This record gives sequence, C-alpha cells and structure tokens, in this order.
Amino acid sequence: MAQAENPLLDDRTVSFLLDEVLDLRAHLALPYFADHDREGVEVLLDMVRKLARRVLYPTWKPQDEQPPTFVDGRVRLHPSFHEAWPALVETGLLSATRPSEHGGQQLPFLVHAVAAAYLGAANLNVVGLGMLTTGAAHLIEAFGDDAQRAQWMTPLYEGRWTGTMALTEPQAGSSLGDVQTTARRAVDGSYRIRGSKIFISGGDHDLGSNVINLALARVVQPDGSSVAGTRGLSLFIVPRRRPDASSGDRWVDNDVTTTQAIHKIGWRGLPSIALSFGDRDDCHGWLVGQPGRGMPQMFQMMNEARVGVGVAAVATASAAYQEALAYARGRAQGRDPRNRDGGGPQLPLVEHADVRRMLLRQKAIVEGSFALALTAARLVDRAAHAPDEAVRAKSQRLLDLLTPIVKSFPAERGYESVALALQIHGGYGYSSEYPIEGWLRDQKLNSIHEGTTGIQGLDLLGRKVVAAGGEALALLLEELEATAARATQSGVEPALGEALRAAGERLRGTTMALAQRGLRGDVLGMLLHSHDFLELASIVVVAWQHLELSAAAHAGLARGGPQPRAFYEGKVLAAQYWLATELPRVPQLAALCEQGEASYATFPDGGW
Amino acid sequence: MAQAENPLLDDRTVSFLLDEVLDLRAHLALPYFADHDREGVEVLLDMVRKLARRVLYPTWKPQDEQPPTFVDGRVRLHPSFHEAWPALVETGLLSATRPSEHGGQQLPFLVHAVAAAYLGAANLNVVGLGMLTTGAAHLIEAFGDDAQRAQWMTPLYEGRWTGTMALTEPQAGSSLGDVQTTARRAVDGSYRIRGSKIFISGGDHDLGSNVINLALARVVQPDGSSVAGTRGLSLFIVPRRRPDASSGDRWVDNDVTTTQAIHKIGWRGLPSIALSFGDRDDCHGWLVGQPGRGMPQMFQMMNEARVGVGVAAVATASAAYQEALAYARGRAQGRDPRNRDGGGPQLPLVEHADVRRMLLRQKAIVEGSFALALTAARLVDRAAHAPDEAVRAKSQRLLDLLTPIVKSFPAERGYESVALALQIHGGYGYSSEYPIEGWLRDQKLNSIHEGTTGIQGLDLLGRKVVAAGGEALALLLEELEATAARATQSGVEPALGEALRAAGERLRGTTMALAQRGLRGDVLGMLLHSHDFLELASIVVVAWQHLELSAAAHAGLARGGPQPRAFYEGKVLAAQYWLATELPRVPQLAALCEQGEASYATFPDGGW
Repeated sequence: MAQAENPLLDDRTVSFLLDEVLDLRAHLALPYFADHDREGVEVLLDMVRKLARRVLYPTWKPQDEQPPTFVDGRVRLHPSFHEAWPALVETGLLSATRPSEHGGQQLPFLVHAVAAAYLGAANLNVVGLGMLTTGAAHLIEAFGDDAQRAQWMTPLYEGRWTGTMALTEPQAGSSLGDVQTTARRAVDGSYRIRGSKIFISGGDHDLGSNVINLALARVVQPDGSSVAGTRGLSLFIVPRRRPDASSGDRWVDNDVTTTQAIHKIGWRGLPSIALSFGDRDDCHGWLVGQPGRGMPQMFQMMNEARVGVGVAAVATASAAYQEALAYARGRAQGRDPRNRDGGGPQLPLVEHADVRRMLLRQKAIVEGSFALALTAARLVDRAAHAPDEAVRAKSQRLLDLLTPIVKSFPAERGYESVALALQIHGGYGYSSEYPIEGWLRDQKLNSIHEGTTGIQGLDLLGRKVVAAGGEALALLLEELEATAARATQSGVEPALGEALRAAGERLRGTTMALAQRGLRGDVLGMLLHSHDFLELASIVVVAWQHLELSAAAHAGLARGGPQPRAFYEGKVLAAQYWLATELPRVPQLAALCEQGEASYATFPDGGW
Repeated sequence: MAQAENPLLDDRTVSFLLDEVLDLRAHLALPYFADHDREGVEVLLDMVRKLARRVLYPTWKPQDEQPPTFVDGRVRLHPSFHEAWPALVETGLLSATRPSEHGGQQLPFLVHAVAAAYLGAANLNVVGLGMLTTGAAHLIEAFGDDAQRAQWMTPLYEGRWTGTMALTEPQAGSSLGDVQTTARRAVDGSYRIRGSKIFISGGDHDLGSNVINLALARVVQPDGSSVAGTRGLSLFIVPRRRPDASSGDRWVDNDVTTTQAIHKIGWRGLPSIALSFGDRDDCHGWLVGQPGRGMPQMFQMMNEARVGVGVAAVATASAAYQEALAYARGRAQGRDPRNRDGGGPQLPLVEHADVRRMLLRQKAIVEGSFALALTAARLVDRAAHAPDEAVRAKSQRLLDLLTPIVKSFPAERGYESVALALQIHGGYGYSSEYPIEGWLRDQKLNSIHEGTTGIQGLDLLGRKVVAAGGEALALLLEELEATAARATQSGVEPALGEALRAAGERLRGTTMALAQRGLRGDVLGMLLHSHDFLELASIVVVAWQHLELSAAAHAGLARGGPQPRAFYEGKVLAAQYWLATELPRVPQLAALCEQGEASYATFPDGGW
C-alpha cells in the first residue's frame, strides 16, 4: 500500500516545544545569541527539514544495505556519503553553536538539537559523523592552544576533515582507567603513540583527506614509569596524516593503521573500526591541554555527546512512530469487536484499541523524551552563556543531573517504542522490505555507546544526585514544583500535579536513604539498585516534562493558540496516559531501592 | 576471548523441571505412554542434546547469513538444510507424540516440548519446518479420512514431504474472516483453488519432492454465492504436486506458484514466501473435514502451535542467556565500585551488581517461561490422554486459559531477555561477529506469528477467562492456592505464598469487574485494557510457576536432592527476585483495567 512520505518529526510538535513550552524567543535574548531571532531559526529549520527529508533520508536504507567496504586496509563509504556529507557541511551545523571567533554562528544548542533531531531521524550515519567531528573540534577548541586550533580545529569545523573519539580499547570499554595506549615524549615536543583502539566510529573512510583522532593515551616517562588508572590518561591529537616535520607543506602518513571493520547491526553506513597506532613506531600525537587531565577534559564534552545520544534516540523513535502511524491509518484489518463476523469493510488499524495504545505509548515516549532532551539542550546554553554566574552554575548542576537520564531514557524506551512500531506492522514489520526493522537495529546502539545504561545508573546515583550535598536534586524538585503549580493554574487536573509532587518526594526520600547507606560505608548496598533508581528518576523526570507539555497545551487551548484544538488535546492525553501508567511504578521502584532486595547480590556462583 | 561451548539449555534445570517439579514419572503412568519410562526419555534427550549442539547449532549462523535464494521461480535452502533436515527426521520427533496406529510413538507432548526446546535453541529454521510439517499432518490425522491419511499424512510424518499452514493473505492477517481464496467443487469431488497467500513459512524449498499446504479457502457455490466471515472457511489439502488423475503413479504440477520470497529479519534460513494458487485454474485441493469448519479445525491445532511458539521463545532466550552468562564470566572489565581506580586485575563482568541483575532477570524470564510452557505441554497430554473424562475436560479448560499467556509471555519477555544478553556484551553484542543479535532478530517473530500479542490479549480476556462462567479462572486459582500451600509447607517464606494469593484474588476481582462491564453491553470498555490484563495475568501465572520452582527447590534442599545446593538456591533466589519485582505491578495493572483509563480510547484523530 502507498505510504505517506515519512515526515520524520512532527513539525507542529517542534513549533509547540520551541514556542509554547521552551520559550525560544526568551532564550534568544541571551547576549551570546544576539545574531539570531525566531524567524531566522525557522529559516534554518526549514532548510534542515528539506535536507533531512529530500537528501538524507533517501540515502539511509541504501547505506544500511551496503555497508562500508574494508579492502586493502582502507575503508570506503557508500557512494551516497559523498553527496550527503557535503550537504551536511554546507548547513554550517558542524560549528554552528561555536563562537564567531572560531568560525561559528553562536546558534543556541537548543536549536542545534532540533536540527540534529530532524537530520538524525533521516540518517544517523551522516549525522553521527558530524557529531563526532564537532566533538573532536570542540575538544581542541576548549583545551588546545591557538596553533592547534588553527591546524586541526578549523578544518574539522569546516568539514574538510572528520574527527573521532578514540577512547575504547579491547580491554578497556566501560573501564577507561584500563586504557593501555602509550605516549612517549619526543624531542620535538610531540609524542609517539602506540596502542590499539576499537569501535572507533568514523575512524577510517574515503571522505576528505584526513581523520583526526582525539585519543586517550597514557604518558610513559623515559624511565618507563606511568600513572595507573584514569589519572594517568592524557588527551592527544592523533591524525591519520601529519605535516612532514622537514616541510610543513607536505603531509605524510602518520602510522595509523585500520586493522578491522566491525560489522555493526545498525548505524551501518558509519564505519566502526579497530585502529592500531604506531606499528612502525612513527605515530605522532600532540598533547591537548594538561597531562593527566584526559578524562576530565573528555568528560567536559561528554555532557553534550550524551545529550546528542538522547536526541539521536528521539529521532529514531520518532521516525518509527511516524511510519507506524501512517501504516495504522492506511492498513485496514479486522473489525469492531462488537461486530467480529459482521461483514462490511475492515477498519483501519488505528481504530483498534490495542493499536491506539501502542501508538499513544510511542507518542508519549517520543514527545516526553524530546521535551527532556531539548530541556537539557537549553540548559547547555544557559550553563555556557547565561550572563549571571549563579544561573550558569545552577544550570550546569541541573544539566549534570539530567544527563544520565537524557542519555538512557530515550534509548531504552525508544527501543521499546520502535519495537511497538514494528509490532503494529505485523509480519510486514518483520521483513526488511519495510523500514522499521532498520530503526530497531539503529536504536539499540543508543543504550550502549557513550556509556551503557548501567554506567548511566551508576553515574546518576553514585555521583550526580549526591553531588554538592544534593543541590542538583533540590533544583530538580524546585522545577517539579514550579511545573505542578503552573499546570494546575493552566487547568490541568490538580491530581496530576499532586501525583508529580508525591513522586518527586519519593525520589527525594529514596535518594536520602541510599545516600545515608553510602555514607555509612555501604557503597555496594547504596548502588545495588542503581538501575531501578535510574528508572525511578527517569519516570519522575519524564512525568515532569509531560506535565509541562500538558500545561502548555491547556494554555494553548484556553487562549486559542496557534495549533488546532485536537493537537493540544493530544498533548493533554499523552501526558494523562504517561502519568497514569508510569507514576504508579515509583513507589514500587523506591521500595526495591530502599529495601535493597538482595537476590542478585547474594546469588551463588553455582546457581546460574 | 574463547567462549565456552553454548549448552543452549541447562541440562540440570531440565532434569529438575521434569523430575522435581512436573513429576514426569507419574505423568508416564498414563496408559497412552505405556511404552515409555523415565530412562527411555533420558536416552531420547541425550540423543536430542547431541543433535542440537553438534549438528543443528553449527548450521544456524550460516543459514542466517545466507538465506534461501529465489531464482527462476523456485526457492533453494542453505545447503546445510540437506543434512540437518534428515537428521531431525531420523529422531522420529515429527510423529513422536502421535498414536502408534499412525506411525507415532505415543511420546508425551511434555517430553516432545523439551526436545523441541533443545533443538529450537540450536536452530529454529529446521525445527520450525518440523513443527509446520507435524502440524499439517496432525490436521489431516484429526479431520481427514483414511485415504487422505494414507496419501498425505504419512509422508509428512515420515519427513519425506513437508507441510505448511496457509492461512494468511495480503488483506487477511489477524483478520482471517477476510480470507478470499476460493474453492469450487469439481466433478471429481476435489476442488479448484484460486487465491494468494503470503508469509507461508516453508511454502517452497528444494527439500523432498512435495510441499503440502493446509490452506483456508472459501467454498463458492455454482451460483457464485459463498458464506462471508470465518464461517465460510474450509480447510483444504493443496499440494505443490498432485497425482495425475489419469495415472495415479505419475505426479504432476498442481499450479501452485511461488511469487515472492520475503526477506525476514530472523528465522532467515526458513523461507517465508507468497504463493499463488490456480493461476492456470488447475490447482486441485481436497477438503479436510467439514465444509465451513476450517477455522475451528485449525484452532483445534492452534493450542499446540501456540505452545510451540512459547517453547521456541524460551529456547531462543535460553541460548542467549547461556551465551551472556559465559561472556560475563569470561570478560574482565572494571573494578569494585569501592576501588574504582585502585589498580589490580579487573573483575569479571559477572561480579558487577547491574550485570548480575541483568543475568538474574534473564534467568527468571527463561526459567519461569520454561516451567510455564512445560506445564502447558503436560496439560496437552492430560487433555488428550487422561483416563478420567473430567480430568481431560478440566485440563483442556486450564490449557485454553494458559495458552495466550504461553504464546505471548515468553515471546515478549524473552525479547527483553535477549536484549539484556546483548547489553551485557556491550559493543561486541552490537556486532554480527557475536551471535546475540541473531537471537534478538529470531525472537521478535514470536510476538507476531500464530497470533500477535494483541490478539492473545483479546483471546484471553474476550474468550478464555470468561468461558463457561469463569470455570478456567477458578481452576487456575485452585492451582495457585495449592502451590502457595505447598510452598509454605516446603519452607518458602510464607509472605511469598500470601503475595501470590493476593495477586490471584486481584486477578479474579479484575476479571469479574471487566466481565460485568461486558455483560452490561460495554464490550469496548471491557476490552480496552486487554493488553494490561494479559500482562497482569501473565505476571500472576509466572509468579505461580516460580513459586512452584521455589517449593521444589526447597524440598530438594531439605531432603538433599540430586542437584548441588547452589543450584537449588539459585531457583529460590530467581523466584524471590521475580515475585519481589513483578507482583507489585499487579495492583497497578488491575487499576488501569478496572478504572478504564481512557486516554487512547478518546484520543482525537487530529492529535497524533
């Protein structure tokens, strides 16, 4: 059957979020954004929508079906990359959020996140390479010196080269303190790098003339000593090609070897490879920032990378939801249960209750996640650019708390959401003739890369909620309270605001109980249910977002906002669904955390 | 890293289930099983284990990587099928449960289900073809006449030919009442079949000399009239090749055309194809059983097919769990959270709390599902072969109730379980160099074929729990009560038995509330939360199974049973985990059902 063209994201929802929920106009009043106004943002988003729908989306499936080749030691991308990448570069998005002094446009990260969502829904291979390139350049911008910026950062921001984050090694995935790649200082002030990296996305390709790896390595002193753990790690620029020392004009091979192309199950257009540095002991690296500060420097970027993963997960879930919605409207199957054998035409799938449940669940996941990711993106802007230092500090604190949730919730529930989209397609969804299964594969990566969901749980409970005496949690609870008050004032059923308040209080109580367990020295007991704690906090945070959406929708209904009534009613009902089905899980998860249910802690080795 | 060979299923758990939980010895005392004893069953299972591990499992990945080809209108299987299929046939399992008069061995379906679990964990492509062949033969056995049995059933049971269930059509998937394939009676008493079928597993291949489709079609009278809906459907034998009417020795083409091979994302070794019957108006079909009884006849087989899907889902989840367990034991990564940067060797993954949670969750899903599927398989035997008619009737009633849960729970939670196994593998799990992603793809089918999960929810709530005045539910609650009493007696913490009783009571209350809503004429309101009701009932039923496992394990500990202590402790802890984490969801789901939370029912068209 003919499918409507997939819009990837719902344009009206984007406008609603930017104008009626997140108040983009007020946000643009920050001095850093002086060159931008709401109308200019819309021009940008129109351009991005067209690029996403007309250029990038048509290349996604071909790239999935014909992944990069690895022949004679080098990786070749799908031919469509050679058109898609320049088109992405031309938007200026690679450096758009950066200061004008570094060639950027000082665009809000909030707007950039919306653009990334459109483009990512169309094709994460291309957008992923863009994010990595921006991330590498941003590290050099933040911690490199002027010469490094000129030599390495600028070509990255301009998209002439691409970048990577070269962290993982075969023995050091989640445990980066075990990185073994070494760096020995040479007489010219640069370092000689030796080691193996794995799962390096974009680590080799036939696009542009250089790949700039931002690599973690361990400095080894002339006496062979080094500092163990993460404190021994430094950040290096390790390009595939380097300027010849004797003649700066000439560029030579930098002894970076592609040893393997991994067959990923999704994001298949973007190569994930294993690299070997220094097989001939001729791999030059340049230290970025302070020695021994590799991890904290990397993590200063990590917030944005993790918000980026959340955006990517929203994008994939949204594309699948839109596809399922179009399918459910177009496909007739079955009849009203009151009239099972009664003849007459079949009903469209969208008329069946359980299909409606699956659609509304997807909508609630997609839109709750999107609102959350954009809220985090706005905090990125405020933390960097608010004139008031206290606002910057508070924004950073709240962002730090939300980041593990932004990283994991859209990924985990977004995976559930795509699976529901597949289910709506029935047997057709189970075939590669339909696009859904590709999004299911793409989505799975988001719970793994940039820190697995398990790592996010440990980060949230072990670091973020207890940081600075729980200041971030207090800030979050203030936000919840403000939203609950605003919602009730806008006409949202007061019980929903009360339910959010109660859930927030339960989150506070659970956090205090666990923190006290940690303070008493029982760190393992504190962290035993870190996954349940992450789930609990995620439910509360997304409920907060949905209540915010509902409040804005009620306000839109009351004043006759720009959207049709049914649009606003949809937001209200999605919020109602989410709070009714998810908030009741809070006490249950809190009890598991607080009581320290110990079945898997005490499980005997011989019992598996 | 070197992986231990995957055992697919845990042999000790199989023995525990058969001997200490399900009392196979007592079951074998049914007269129909007179030729079998416990020792003979073990000989069979030993043979099956070897076949699964040594012959079938090594063919799974190659078959996945090189799916059947479709060239010149015909389908060719992966070459390994030509060894794997005869090996499966040689076990005699295709007809093992059938009466000796039909060439069977009168083996318990319970034992057959265990054998199918081993073999299915190894390779569902081959086992799937076997199940389809047995199913087709069984239909002819049950409803055909002697001549049909001799001509069609016997070659199927002997594995010389294979069979299909040809139900689905492009416009009739979940809605079989819309089947349009027609059958017109010919002068020779056979019928001429015309129509298109889709998603016909095993509908064409190069194995054996014939494919026997058991097809639903609508009889059209000479005046062109036919009965609409499911009541107009009859069951036909529609072979790919038929005996020549003029010379019974010669076999001729029966005008069955393969029109398409669908690119499934899992079970890829088993072709799923589109068939066209009667392009030349020369497709002969033979009526099986009564005209207009196609659906009820098909559904008499459907219970076993749906239990078979449950077993397949358990098998896939088990193979993935075993793989994840071996990986978690062998892969060192990270350190104790109390000693994050402290040097020394890394811990195996299995020592990390969140990995243990993921493993125990998989174990609880796999073993709870397995116990449930085998309990259903034992009911299949009792319903067919218990000497006492009342026992047969009660067994059938309870089986009918459990079937939608056996069909859906292992599929849905088994999918979650395989996703956890992938997650434990981190980035490696996301690559096709490791087997996990293949099981994730395989598993997804189980929530779709033989009736989607949504259909199971409607079946459970709309038919099964309300059938015969709720007699089946009363039987289930009796079983729960007996298990709770036995558990407490065996030394299981009494609170767990109480929790199960309370959950059962809540299930009863919710069922009554919904049934009354239906009786008042509000069928849509009754069925609105059929998915939540299915989830609720599934949680209760699996908790019942886990409590049964825990009771048996306690008994084993007390009397020094055949298994090591740690084995029994593992069962006790898995049950504790499941009841602690899942039973608290019962009141929440019950409230959604009872209150009829109406967000998706009332959702406006323009709001999506």
